[in-house]
Parts: sequence; C-alpha cells; structure tokens
Amino acid sequence: MSNHYELDSDVIHQTWDNAIAPRLSIDAGDTVTFHTRDAANNYYDPDSSAEDVLNRGPFVGHPLTGPVYIRDAAPGDVLAVEVIAMDFAASFGWTAVRKGRGLLPEAEVPDAYLQIWDLSDGSHARMRQRDDIAVPVAAFAGIMGNALALPGAHSTMPPRETGGNMDNKHLTVGSTLYLPVQVEGALFSTGDAHAAQGDGECCVTAVETWSNITLKFDLLPQKNFAEPRLRTHGPLCSSTNTGPYYATTAQGPDLFANSQQAIRYMIDHLMEERGLSWQESYVLCSVAVDLKISEIVDAPNWLVSAFLPEIVFVK
Amino acid sequence: MSNHYELDSDVIHQTWDNAIAPRLSIDAGDTVTFHTRDAANNYYDPDSSAEDVLNRGPFVGHPLTGPVYIRDAAPGDVLAVEVIAMDFAASFGWTAVRKGRGLLPEAEVPDAYLQIWDLSDGSHARMRQRDDIAVPVAAFAGIMGNALALPGAHSTMPPRETGGNMDNKHLTVGSTLYLPVQVEGALFSTGDAHAAQGDGECCVTAVETWSNITLKFDLLPQKNFAEPRLRTHGPLCSSTNTGPYYATTAQGPDLFANSQQAIRYMIDHLMEERGLSWQESYVLCSVAVDLKISEIVDAPNWLVSAFLPEIVFVK
Repeated sequence: MSNHYELDSDVIHQTWDNAIAPRLSIDAGDTVTFHTRDAANNYYDPDSSAEDVLNRGPFVGHPLTGPVYIRDAAPGDVLAVEVIAMDFAASFGWTAVRKGRGLLPEAEVPDAYLQIWDLSDGSHARMRQRDDIAVPVAAFAGIMGNALALPGAHSTMPPRETGGNMDNKHLTVGSTLYLPVQVEGALFSTGDAHAAQGDGECCVTAVETWSNITLKFDLLPQKNFAEPRLRTHGPLCSSTNTGPYYATTAQGPDLFANSQQAIRYMIDHLMEERGLSWQESYVLCSVAVDLKISEIVDAPNWLVSAFLPEIVFVK
Repeated sequence: MSNHYELDSDVIHQTWDNAIAPRLSIDAGDTVTFHTRDAANNYYDPDSSAEDVLNRGPFVGHPLTGPVYIRDAAPGDVLAVEVIAMDFAASFGWTAVRKGRGLLPEAEVPDAYLQIWDLSDGSHARMRQRDDIAVPVAAFAGIMGNALALPGAHSTMPPRETGGNMDNKHLTVGSTLYLPVQVEGALFSTGDAHAAQGDGECCVTAVETWSNITLKFDLLPQKNFAEPRLRTHGPLCSSTNTGPYYATTAQGPDLFANSQQAIRYMIDHLMEERGLSWQESYVLCSVAVDLKISEIVDAPNWLVSAFLPEIVFVK
C-alpha cells in the first residue's frame, strides 16, 4: 500500500542544511505533491519591470518545499524520484537579466531587464511584447535534491553531489531522477520550477514560475552513485524538437569561453535576423537555446554549439 | 543553370593550406559529389585489430577531398553548404581507442582497442562481437571547411574559424552549413565521414568510414560570420531520439573535468548494467552519447550531462 501526501509552500527553507526538521515522513513507494514558490520567492508579479530587478537586493536562496524524510533511506542508497505530474500555479513566468550574473560578463550586459511571459494557455510561454515568439512549455523543477552530510547551511545556488540546483531541463514529467543519499531519511526538497529552459540557462533564469509537482519516491539500497543520474520516459525535447534548428558554433581551447562566444553569435543572429533587442535575445537564449559540446577531443580546439529551435517563432 | 560534378578520392590533401591548387572550379548553385576516404586513410580493414592501432604510427592529417574553388567567393562572404545526400562507400566502420588521445587521461585507458562496426544494412552500425548493440546511422562529414587566410600548412585536427574538423553530428542530410570565406574561391574540402557519433566524440573517433557526399554550394556576400553556423532541415537526432535516454551528470567548476567525470559514470553504468567491457563502453560513449551543458550559471558549479539513447540496445 502506498500513500499520497501534499506539502504546501507556506513553509519554505532557503539553504541546504541537514538540521532542518522534516515536514513529512513517508515510505518508499509513496507519492507527494509539492507546491513550490518561484526562485525569487514571489517578488515579481505580471506588472513588475526592470526597475524591480535592480531593487531586488542580494539573492538569499531559492525557496524550497520540504524536507521530506523517506523512512529507511540510508547513506549510500539512491533515492529514485519519478516525476508523475507537474503544472503551474501561476499564469505568468519571468526571466530576469542582472548584471554580474549569468554567462556573459557584466560589462556586456546593457542594463537590467525583466521579461514577463504569459503562461495562461498552459502550452506556451508567450513573450508578452512580441506576439511572434512563443516557447513551447516543457516544465521541470530546477531544484530536486537531498540534504548533504556536511553540517551547516549551504547555498542553494550550486548543484551538488546530492542534486539541488541542477537545472537539468530533461527532468520533465515521466523522467526518473536518481539522487545519492548522504543522510538518514535522505531529506528531499524541491523548488525553482521552470516552464521552459535551454540547456545551459545562460542568463541565469529560465521561465520561472510557481508549480505543483507530484513525485514518487523509491529506494535503491546501497547503489552508491557519486552524483545524480536520470532516465527519461521517452524522446528528449518532445515539445521543441519538431522542426528546424538554427545553430551557432564557437571553437577554442576553453569550453566556458566557447559557450560565451556561441551565445554572443546567437544574440547577433536574433538581433539581425529576427529584430529582437539584445536583452530579448539573451532571454530567449536562456529559455530556448541548447548548449551542446560538439567535440571535446580535436586538440587544441573544442567546439561548443548553441541550438535554437525555430518553432519558437510562431509568425 | 547549375552543374553537377564528381570529385574522386584518388587525390587527397592532409593539411589546410591555401597554396594547394584547386581540383575543381564551380559556380554558386552547383553541386558536387565528393568521394571521401576515412580518417585513417584506408589503414584499417574489417580484419584489423588493436595491434594495428598500436602499429599505426603518428597521425599525419585527415585525408580530405578538394579543394573546390567557388567562383566569386571572396573574403568576408559566407559559403552556404547544403548536404544533399550521403552514403557509405564501405560496409564497415571502425572506432579506435588510443592511449593519450581522447577525453580520458592516458593512465585510465587500459589498452589500445579497435571496434569494427558492421554497416552492411545501411541503417545501423552493429557492434560485431555483441548482437545486442546497434547504433542507428546518422551520417555526416566530420570535416567540412574552407582554407584559412593564414599562409602555410595547418593541421586538420582542430576545428578553426573556417570550419574543418568540427565533428558536429547535426550536419546530417538536409542541413546547411554556413562557413566563413577567408580566401578567394573559398577552397572548400571535406572528409572524415562518420556513420554515427555522440555530441563530444569522447574517444576521438566515431564510426569512421568512407563516403560519397553530395553538397550544394551557395554564396552569401559579405555576411562576415566570424565562425561557422548551421541550420537543420528538421528535428535533431531523428534516428536516435525515439525512446528513453539514460543520463549521468557531473558538477564542478570546470566543464572539461565535468565532461570527463560524466563519461566515467556512463562507462561505470555500461559495465555494471549492460555487461560491456571498459573499451566497449568508451567506444559506445563516443559513437552514441551526447554531452550537454545542462547549466553554466549556478556558480561555482556547472553541470554537464551525458545522455545515452537506449535505442542502441536492441535486445
């Protein structure tokens, strides 16, 4: 017999800390619906602007829903987390560009910027000021993770051995995530819902929103994975991989610099060929463009490619 | 009126050098069928073994078919190269593991290894010694490029501003590659056919083979791309993106180290769950596993994921 639970987002935590008391204890086989707040903890609304980005103040951690204690989970086990269902709890999403954050250096970013997306039809993130751009929805939780064995409070920003802010866009409904367990009960939490994102999430935010996500938990005893793994239910990118892609490429000895350069070329392309502003272009890269390592062996130049699904252009 | 030409592989060149005389002059709008030798210049045959890998001697450059002079092409132009058709000119392909080459450090590679693939059915690269593994064919030219403006002879190994050994697996039939022109006539060459490859090509060889590839050339005057771009005709990975993927992930501050680690985890997985040897696993990663930059903004840890299409397991 398995049970289903709900966990509201009235109480959140904003660090990874194994001393945070679990809000719920469950057995392997149970399912939980998590209500999650967005990455900015309800700071933005559909009327927000670039001004609000500037006034936001320092990042204090993603609000996470949890922790959930999974009975019998022990260090060395792997927690299998199947994504059963996911929907939005808001009719809008947002993408923010902040100087000093994201892939491109501060000096290149003209100004702070906020993109509000219309999510009201459930199928697309529509760029409000441009009716020719709509990004197909492919929702996932940017953060799913277990508590670390390391004592103390740890930032939610970087992904870690036990998962966390992986921003792995392929963790859509039907996928199963395999997370290392480092503490008794695993202490799983989730949050940071994204309605759509490109591989890389180059401007540091995706289509950020609130969500309801239902997860099923199982245990693989003493599987001892060092880092997370996953299995998808079916093909990748089924909502966007339906037509042509346009891609830019950049070669050189540094994958990070190549990634920056490939995104710069894509911004050039979007501005010149599609008439987007610099910020609209950067934002569209973050929510729709996939960074691929095309080759990492042809010394001394590795090749990074940035792939844009042209289905985002609806006119 | 446009013309069609053929270029045999009796004559090849093994460096990029703008002093190499063109074998053919064409107009924009023309098509050319290039016959290409494999990356090892016909060194391997279906009876070759790891011994042959050890005895091969130093790499002396990919054998390329060309150059082709495109009339009116001038520095600053972009050469648009549409892939019209491609087939194999051999019924086998090979993947070699050589110590000191490829993504993983020499000390980790147990021994030289050669994988012969059966390509005789045209649709799959079949691992000869294991009838449970068949990689769907998605052929492309590892090398398409224009001569550099820089005088002298330059290695074919690294990709460069004018293309070359990009090993971009998405340049399959129907794609158009946009290559910067640096010298009069562009001086285009191609070679290094791959029947299948993963994004990354981690062991430094894919399913290497001979090919006949038909390309259509057009010019975009003074488009001034700094590096190659491309557009696909349709969805990506249409032969492999048809079912579930298994993925490993690795986080940390260095994308190269993360890529190595994600491939190590995938090798662990293939050995433990699928019973492959270390070398079979590494080779399968090179020809089928895609390296994705999942996030490059959640400082200080970037996430690289290695995605294996499970359709390669046919039993």
